[in-house]
Amino acid sequence: MSNATSTDLYEVTMAQSYLREGMTGSATFSLFVRDLPPDRGFLVCAGLDPVLDFLSSYRVDADDVDVFATVMGRRPEDLAPLLGLEFRGEVRAMPEGRIALAGEPLLEVTAPLPQAQLVETYVLNQLSHQTTVASKCARCVLAADGHPVVDFSLRRTHGIEAGNQAARLGAMVGFAGTSNVRAAHSEGLTAVGTMAHSYIEAFGAEEDAFRAFARSHPGPVTLLVDTYDTGTGVATAARVLRDLGLGPGCAIRLDSGDLGALAVQARAILDAAGLQETRIVASGGLDEFAVDGLVRSKVPIDTYAVGTRIGVCADAPYLDSAYKLVEYDGRPVMKLSSAKVTAPGRKQVFRRPEHADLIALIDEPPPPDGTPLLESVMREGHRVSERTKLDRARQRFVTDLAALPAGARTIRAPTAPRAEPSECLSSLTADVRRHIEQNLLGDTHGAL
Amino acid sequence: MSNATSTDLYEVTMAQSYLREGMTGSATFSLFVRDLPPDRGFLVCAGLDPVLDFLSSYRVDADDVDVFATVMGRRPEDLAPLLGLEFRGEVRAMPEGRIALAGEPLLEVTAPLPQAQLVETYVLNQLSHQTTVASKCARCVLAADGHPVVDFSLRRTHGIEAGNQAARLGAMVGFAGTSNVRAAHSEGLTAVGTMAHSYIEAFGAEEDAFRAFARSHPGPVTLLVDTYDTGTGVATAARVLRDLGLGPGCAIRLDSGDLGALAVQARAILDAAGLQETRIVASGGLDEFAVDGLVRSKVPIDTYAVGTRIGVCADAPYLDSAYKLVEYDGRPVMKLSSAKVTAPGRKQVFRRPEHADLIALIDEPPPPDGTPLLESVMREGHRVSERTKLDRARQRFVTDLAALPAGARTIRAPTAPRAEPSECLSSLTADVRRHIEQNLLGDTHGAL
Repeated sequence: MSNATSTDLYEVTMAQSYLREGMTGSATFSLFVRDLPPDRGFLVCAGLDPVLDFLSSYRVDADDVDVFATVMGRRPEDLAPLLGLEFRGEVRAMPEGRIALAGEPLLEVTAPLPQAQLVETYVLNQLSHQTTVASKCARCVLAADGHPVVDFSLRRTHGIEAGNQAARLGAMVGFAGTSNVRAAHSEGLTAVGTMAHSYIEAFGAEEDAFRAFARSHPGPVTLLVDTYDTGTGVATAARVLRDLGLGPGCAIRLDSGDLGALAVQARAILDAAGLQETRIVASGGLDEFAVDGLVRSKVPIDTYAVGTRIGVCADAPYLDSAYKLVEYDGRPVMKLSSAKVTAPGRKQVFRRPEHADLIALIDEPPPPDGTPLLESVMREGHRVSERTKLDRARQRFVTDLAALPAGARTIRAPTAPRAEPSECLSSLTADVRRHIEQNLLGDTHGAL
Repeated sequence: MSNATSTDLYEVTMAQSYLREGMTGSATFSLFVRDLPPDRGFLVCAGLDPVLDFLSSYRVDADDVDVFATVMGRRPEDLAPLLGLEFRGEVRAMPEGRIALAGEPLLEVTAPLPQAQLVETYVLNQLSHQTTVASKCARCVLAADGHPVVDFSLRRTHGIEAGNQAARLGAMVGFAGTSNVRAAHSEGLTAVGTMAHSYIEAFGAEEDAFRAFARSHPGPVTLLVDTYDTGTGVATAARVLRDLGLGPGCAIRLDSGDLGALAVQARAILDAAGLQETRIVASGGLDEFAVDGLVRSKVPIDTYAVGTRIGVCADAPYLDSAYKLVEYDGRPVMKLSSAKVTAPGRKQVFRRPEHADLIALIDEPPPPDGTPLLESVMREGHRVSERTKLDRARQRFVTDLAALPAGARTIRAPTAPRAEPSECLSSLTADVRRHIEQNLLGDTHGAL
């Protein structure tokens, strides 16, 4: 059973019908996000590599045909036309790290209709989820305003793979480290983390635990100070660090309570002990809203560890993404369902220094100062772009972020810029709508 | 690199230190949810099988040691004591499908301290995520009040694996089908789904699309009617179904707009065409709140397809779960951090017909009418329970649900029942707190 079974059933029933009807003309599907969640001013594109891996290895094998037949209650012969089907299409996409806006295609697939249809579920799943998380992580970096942010999300993401992706996506937008060992190793990230409350409790006395930890881990340590009483914990940590001649590079971690007030208290205790270089790490239910509040209050927290709420993107755990047919066999198509109208035709998006992004048809002349955002990444089913390098994606993100209006970068109630359709796109949209109304609705409306 | 690297770094730094300090006494960690999200009256336990698979195969191999050393910037020799470490402990857990409440251990691990600590991240990830989704799915079944509910979530879950789990968990609590081909095949579920808007658009005219679909798929079909104009689409579908002599077992699907009003309109059109047995399926952004509203309005929708909001558990995508040390080397332990106090000691939970659940210490005599909820599932690292059978888990869920107070089962603002601590547990909690305050805080408080 290959990845081809990682699909909604209707992709298969449609593909089978397309093949039976000889509908194998070229189709373009456009993947875009209709509207951003309330507290988002922009999206950060992510998830392209697994999509291209999936597409380049896509093949319906005999086992898959058997699975399709079984779940559909059909004979394997009925599904036989799907056997051996591979993805041999073209893909144009925004590279990872690129900032995107509502309505802009993040990716366009052009392939024979059954191929382009069959891959929908997987492509939508990966791009939607990873773009969701990358965009959330980016907001944490903005909120921290130069303070390091680290990822502690693995224990509560929707599975281990989602945790690995969160660690990578955090790093892509500028996180300084992750608690996730596997992701740190695979992606070359800085691994962070020292002790949990259980460590203190197993020893009983905090001082015993802190000294044991320092014995086991020569070099800078981070001591968790809120197992019993935070003030006492900080004082004990300060005494141990001073006794052992530690301090620079070391930190204490606050994980509960009023983090801002406790940080002020902790800073005073550390400073009084001559530990001006011992840093304060805060964790525990943080997200970009909480970090923004703490940073604006100028509390003496040095590093912010974000976890659960970022890894699951708690305030907006999905995007209103769609993978819509925009052209079939040379004919632009669209949907008119209420509130879900799609714009027809293959597209290109241009970023312009002084103007809104322009969503244009693919064959329009580019605007004079526009940078095209969709790049060719796959031709005839083969990758023509290199795999994402995290530091290049980060550079892309940093550059795009700097060009974004300030209102899109605020944490609370940001203003998301809107892309504009080109005149050609608007005109085509109106033409196709008129065609549908006159030819597909006119003759049947109200009739039975 | 084994699954042992799917961990937060601090589990490794602590385990290394425990081994160095000879702290290999028996430890019990208790996994529980502190408080339920606002709109939850109960939890449905889920995720135990992958946890037990992970624990029974847990082994730190040489590659893992290298990974640990690399990410910690240590020499492999420093981590060598971890080499070959396996999980050889005991696990007691609530089986899948069981209903649980805040504060009740869903699982307790008892093992030598380094073993019990190293497995935290994975265990917490799987049980938290799957219990989150199973509990959300259960609410959809309640809201639908006897109408079939089907899962369409795969395209927007946090990865493919999360989608497979959502399909399985929906079925566990009574969903009638899933669009997910792989999950349907693996778990023996009913696969559902027929066509997307792209199918209609590729044909252009709805009638051509509907007729082609019926040619390709003999037997009952579901026709999507809202690509251009819903009233027109229903009328066209009715004409095609009537012409082809179809109807019973067939359905139309509404995917946008005011689903209740459109269902009323569609029902009238279908009935006027003599298609009283053609059903109406609704989809598009549904969750238990929307389903509850539609069902209460008695609109003529037969089947509810839920997707994105259920698969990601949109209103509460994580649980406030914790894996806390409660006993080490025969000594009960607890944490006093503000708002995060944990109760010490190994526990058992008893469900009582006429009273609240009782959280007791493991060695207390059981209450006369109490059913113990935690079962022994692993001893010395080996499974002693069979794998979950979905229909047994569903039976467990149905039985537990029937015994739950009505207020816990309402969709909006449910009242979550609270479990009560036994007298022995309350007394132990007070004793341990007093011990900490007198012995661990008294001598250092405020001192530097």
